[in-house]
Amino acid sequence: MKIKSTLKLLALKVLALKLIALSALFVICAMNAGAQQKPCLTASKFGPDDQIGNVNYITPAKTLEATKLVTKGKTYRLAIETNKDTPAYAPRTFNVTITQPTQVAGGSLGPTKTTYNDDMVVGWNGVGTQIDGLGHIGIDYLYYNCNKAADFVATDGLRKLGVEHIPAIATRGVLLDMAGYFNTDIVKEGTAFTRADIEGAMKRQGIKSIEKGDVVLFYTGWLKLLGKDNQRFGSVAPGLGRDGARYLASKEVAMIGADTWSFEAVPFEKDAGIFEVHQILIPMNGIHILENINTEEMVRDQAWEFLFTLGPARITGAVQAIVNPIAIK
Amino acid sequence: MKIKSTLKLLALKVLALKLIALSALFVICAMNAGAQQKPCLTASKFGPDDQIGNVNYITPAKTLEATKLVTKGKTYRLAIETNKDTPAYAPRTFNVTITQPTQVAGGSLGPTKTTYNDDMVVGWNGVGTQIDGLGHIGIDYLYYNCNKAADFVATDGLRKLGVEHIPAIATRGVLLDMAGYFNTDIVKEGTAFTRADIEGAMKRQGIKSIEKGDVVLFYTGWLKLLGKDNQRFGSVAPGLGRDGARYLASKEVAMIGADTWSFEAVPFEKDAGIFEVHQILIPMNGIHILENINTEEMVRDQAWEFLFTLGPARITGAVQAIVNPIAIK
Amino acid sequence: MKIKSTLKLLALKVLALKLIALSALFVICAMNAGAQQKPCLTASKFGPDDQIGNVNYITPAKTLEATKLVTKGKTYRLAIETNKDTPAYAPRTFNVTITQPTQVAGGSLGPTKTTYNDDMVVGWNGVGTQIDGLGHIGIDYLYYNCNKAADFVATDGLRKLGVEHIPAIATRGVLLDMAGYFNTDIVKEGTAFTRADIEGAMKRQGIKSIEKGDVVLFYTGWLKLLGKDNQRFGSVAPGLGRDGARYLASKEVAMIGADTWSFEAVPFEKDAGIFEVHQILIPMNGIHILENINTEEMVRDQAWEFLFTLGPARITGAVQAIVNPIAIK
Amino acid sequence: MKIKSTLKLLALKVLALKLIALSALFVICAMNAGAQQKPCLTASKFGPDDQIGNVNYITPAKTLEATKLVTKGKTYRLAIETNKDTPAYAPRTFNVTITQPTQVAGGSLGPTKTTYNDDMVVGWNGVGTQIDGLGHIGIDYLYYNCNKAADFVATDGLRKLGVEHIPAIATRGVLLDMAGYFNTDIVKEGTAFTRADIEGAMKRQGIKSIEKGDVVLFYTGWLKLLGKDNQRFGSVAPGLGRDGARYLASKEVAMIGADTWSFEAVPFEKDAGIFEVHQILIPMNGIHILENINTEEMVRDQAWEFLFTLGPARITGAVQAIVNPIAIK
Repeated sequence: MKIKSTLKLLALKVLALKLIALSALFVICAMNAGAQQKPCLTASKFGPDDQIGNVNYITPAKTLEATKLVTKGKTYRLAIETNKDTPAYAPRTFNVTITQPTQVAGGSLGPTKTTYNDDMVVGWNGVGTQIDGLGHIGIDYLYYNCNKAADFVATDGLRKLGVEHIPAIATRGVLLDMAGYFNTDIVKEGTAFTRADIEGAMKRQGIKSIEKGDVVLFYTGWLKLLGKDNQRFGSVAPGLGRDGARYLASKEVAMIGADTWSFEAVPFEKDAGIFEVHQILIPMNGIHILENINTEEMVRDQAWEFLFTLGPARITGAVQAIVNPIAIK
Repeated sequence: MKIKSTLKLLALKVLALKLIALSALFVICAMNAGAQQKPCLTASKFGPDDQIGNVNYITPAKTLEATKLVTKGKTYRLAIETNKDTPAYAPRTFNVTITQPTQVAGGSLGPTKTTYNDDMVVGWNGVGTQIDGLGHIGIDYLYYNCNKAADFVATDGLRKLGVEHIPAIATRGVLLDMAGYFNTDIVKEGTAFTRADIEGAMKRQGIKSIEKGDVVLFYTGWLKLLGKDNQRFGSVAPGLGRDGARYLASKEVAMIGADTWSFEAVPFEKDAGIFEVHQILIPMNGIHILENINTEEMVRDQAWEFLFTLGPARITGAVQAIVNPIAIK
Repeated sequence: MKIKSTLKLLALKVLALKLIALSALFVICAMNAGAQQKPCLTASKFGPDDQIGNVNYITPAKTLEATKLVTKGKTYRLAIETNKDTPAYAPRTFNVTITQPTQVAGGSLGPTKTTYNDDMVVGWNGVGTQIDGLGHIGIDYLYYNCNKAADFVATDGLRKLGVEHIPAIATRGVLLDMAGYFNTDIVKEGTAFTRADIEGAMKRQGIKSIEKGDVVLFYTGWLKLLGKDNQRFGSVAPGLGRDGARYLASKEVAMIGADTWSFEAVPFEKDAGIFEVHQILIPMNGIHILENINTEEMVRDQAWEFLFTLGPARITGAVQAIVNPIAIK
Repeated sequence: MKIKSTLKLLALKVLALKLIALSALFVICAMNAGAQQKPCLTASKFGPDDQIGNVNYITPAKTLEATKLVTKGKTYRLAIETNKDTPAYAPRTFNVTITQPTQVAGGSLGPTKTTYNDDMVVGWNGVGTQIDGLGHIGIDYLYYNCNKAADFVATDGLRKLGVEHIPAIATRGVLLDMAGYFNTDIVKEGTAFTRADIEGAMKRQGIKSIEKGDVVLFYTGWLKLLGKDNQRFGSVAPGLGRDGARYLASKEVAMIGADTWSFEAVPFEKDAGIFEVHQILIPMNGIHILENINTEEMVRDQAWEFLFTLGPARITGAVQAIVNPIAIK
């Protein structure tokens, strides 16, 4: 019958169009079963004006408690260097240029012959040790706390979620030695850490708990490749998997870091999205990510729990920042 | 007699040439009476390989001691924002550019529709809150620890004294409320703090001592002008004078900061060189300088002694760094 | 009947979805009645591989003919200067930095004491006198010759339609003195030149024809405002209207230029799109646009027909180029 | 005798000091025997305000004459491409960044759905095909026309001798096929062209004369190495020698170019200074230099004499410019 076949055809067309239009939502809803109660998929627990996510959990009480972890006074500089040779995600580049303004031809200033060097940076914030701000990663242009890209992303700086909003960070840091846990020098690329792996590493190291507002750092040995096999270093990596990410999100940690460029496992887990772990942490849970965090010396010292401090340069509207967190044990 | 007059003429010529050649040295020697015993005027106390100066005094014992100053867990973010409107010393400029690589026309990546913002910085390190590295200021091209400019300054990065060498900083911080001491909201431009002023401020605030390895911060109220009178803000300032600088150098502090762009008093003190206080501290004494340090809230809280932490981004060969130190009380 | 109503509902849904999806096309088709025969709305007359549009009309015969317009040998430099103070469309900025690599502290190179300055540019190509390449403007991400943005736009350079493809330009130039035509020093902002205006100006100047492959330049006097009233200069302008643009497109000119930042009339004509004249010329007709073309001296000399030459710097994948065309009369 | 010996000692000291001070001058004077009559070694023939050198010789009569060389109307684009892979003199780098301001997430502007790409350049002017301005090369900080570096070089742009001063160039061009002359595909690196070589090449090609105000281009085949052996391409080259440079300077040409990065022979001639040919041409004779000029097709066409046109982008205070001269035959 004609009506029926037309009906079928129309129904199929509608179905196809709907499927295309809604596929994003289906995928996303699977990520977060509780999404329907929230104003949007990425709504903040801290209200509609929140721009810092779980960093809100770092209260003075938390900081004071973390300070008590300092028993030796030893400090650790967690950054690698950033320069034109640092492997970076395409098309990121980095250059510094040194000048001597007003001192051409050997000139100097005034009676005490002052001379000075000045410097200019031309480069991407995502080169070297970096923090991914909450405006870095989105789900189909939906960013943290219901912010749509069209509403806050401008070519000359984010109007919201820029790194300038990150408060002074001083909290408990926990270092998970995944290389030790997997009994290897360098954890194999693609290894995606699960809840079980995290709990196994904690047990092995005698770490009792991961707590609200903590910063968790993963050590994989991956930075041993830097400068030796940059091709391998920068194209793949071990890292946090979706199961591990959801577990740490359930613990309400403030930030998570790793000693790799990608933070998460690359190649991505089977059936995973592209940088889906970034999506789970940043827009879905307001958890900042730290990359290329060098914890080599801390592992040697078995400095598992410590005071973690971080103050990213407050570049207005910047998505990321080149940082150098410090750990104090 | 001909011989005599020729002799006189020659002697005068020699004298004139010598005077020109040595004038710098005379000026400089007056700065530091003990210079003649040192391998050079700017030799480090810490040996010929030293690149960090008094930061060497920040030992684990010092850090541990400083940690005990934390009694409330309150953190302070000491940076102002850096952007295209931040007043900066000419010809410094700053811009950030946001891009969405590979996502043109509303595209996204993979099944979970990942989208992301990336950012590029084109600007000078000396814009906003900054640390002056030990390669920033010299005396007629002689920099810290006998380093001559021609030996370590390259257009694509310093070969020595770059900020990447600065270790993780966690030490005692001392805040001197000069506005309170001078009983004013904003200390007048050109006011050059002396030893007596420093001691007076300490006494008023009940600070017993300034110690080896400390970071001393001056509060003048000057940042109240930022965004209100940028012309005044960025052309003059109160700040440390030569007498005060020599006093703090004698105390062997690690770093000194202030809430102004210039750190030292501008207009410069009578008979002073151009940025001579910078010369006294950086090349002559290996003391880092911090500029545009926002301590407004700390003054309100009377947070005079605290744990000061700082990890500058490790940009290889950079002269300065845009920083955001944090104080914990 | 249930089937019928369901059918209607489905049909309506389909209709609504289609309407949303196709609305762009409807708008666009109105622009060009002949669109349906072409492989796409912006298809080139010169075949699927074409990247230069009407510049194809500049044949050796055309160039040879244009050379005969030179009767005095007088040359005209058509560019204004580009620098940090040049008014530019947001967020465009521009800075040049001069350095003396390897010559710190008054050093020089070798026995003849060679010294040199080098320079770095950090800025946007669309500052000052510029050519808009065929990859600059699109219609809902459809660019010249059926190129979709997702297929050729990369963050580190266009993969097609970049300015490096523009051949050496030497052709007949025609200057239309619109200030003279409107009998004023500076044509009023928002004035949108029509076919009648163009023909009127030609008649007034004694220009017999506009021909295939010509470069047509409009003089409005607008550059008289530069440096005097930058706010007015850079926010509005007189310029080509849609009617005039379609007329010149029908003449198959190679490029059209003007002495304003916007090229077309701003505020835009009533009912016009945003930079719709750019759309008519660049993607729809493969006609390059030139902005901030300084023809002041040519108007004084009544140099109406001349040899126009242009060689844009061949920056691979660049969208625009800062240029300095030269006219020879 | 004491007086005598003291006298001798003093005389020796004076001598030594003078020798150091004047050594530069001695070297330089050897370059130009007529120097003593001029206000300074690099004085312009065109008066104290001159900033363009021999370009002054390009008069309307000269341009008109050159136009008559056009017989076929064939145009030649003389530039190679400039991009991040173009071999460049250290520490020069080059990057272009494409953005879509205000169009995040697939947005477009207004009813006609305007979309656009914009682009930013971060790079050095001396990458790819370039003109060396008269402020590029000096002799111990003395630049063209008695300009001392300290008087005109600022970090944010030259105050004199910037490329913005170069007028519209349209003059006779002469192409010398040195590969043909030396009967080879690619002239060997280090080959330094003499007057005899120039005259030999002219004779071989039937070129009668080189004249005042001409632009002379050398073809060596060197660009055949580009992209094939960048290491060799960018480290050595054949090119003009001192004898050839003085000969062409005596002919009062306006500009000289070559198809190499260095323009002059590298390794430098025996006993020559570093880039001494640049010194002979630019500061000593006000002759602009063009590098990486691609004349491959012109050689194939035997286009030996032609109309040469050039309009460098007028970046205020720039030392060099990335250019794309065009030749018309």
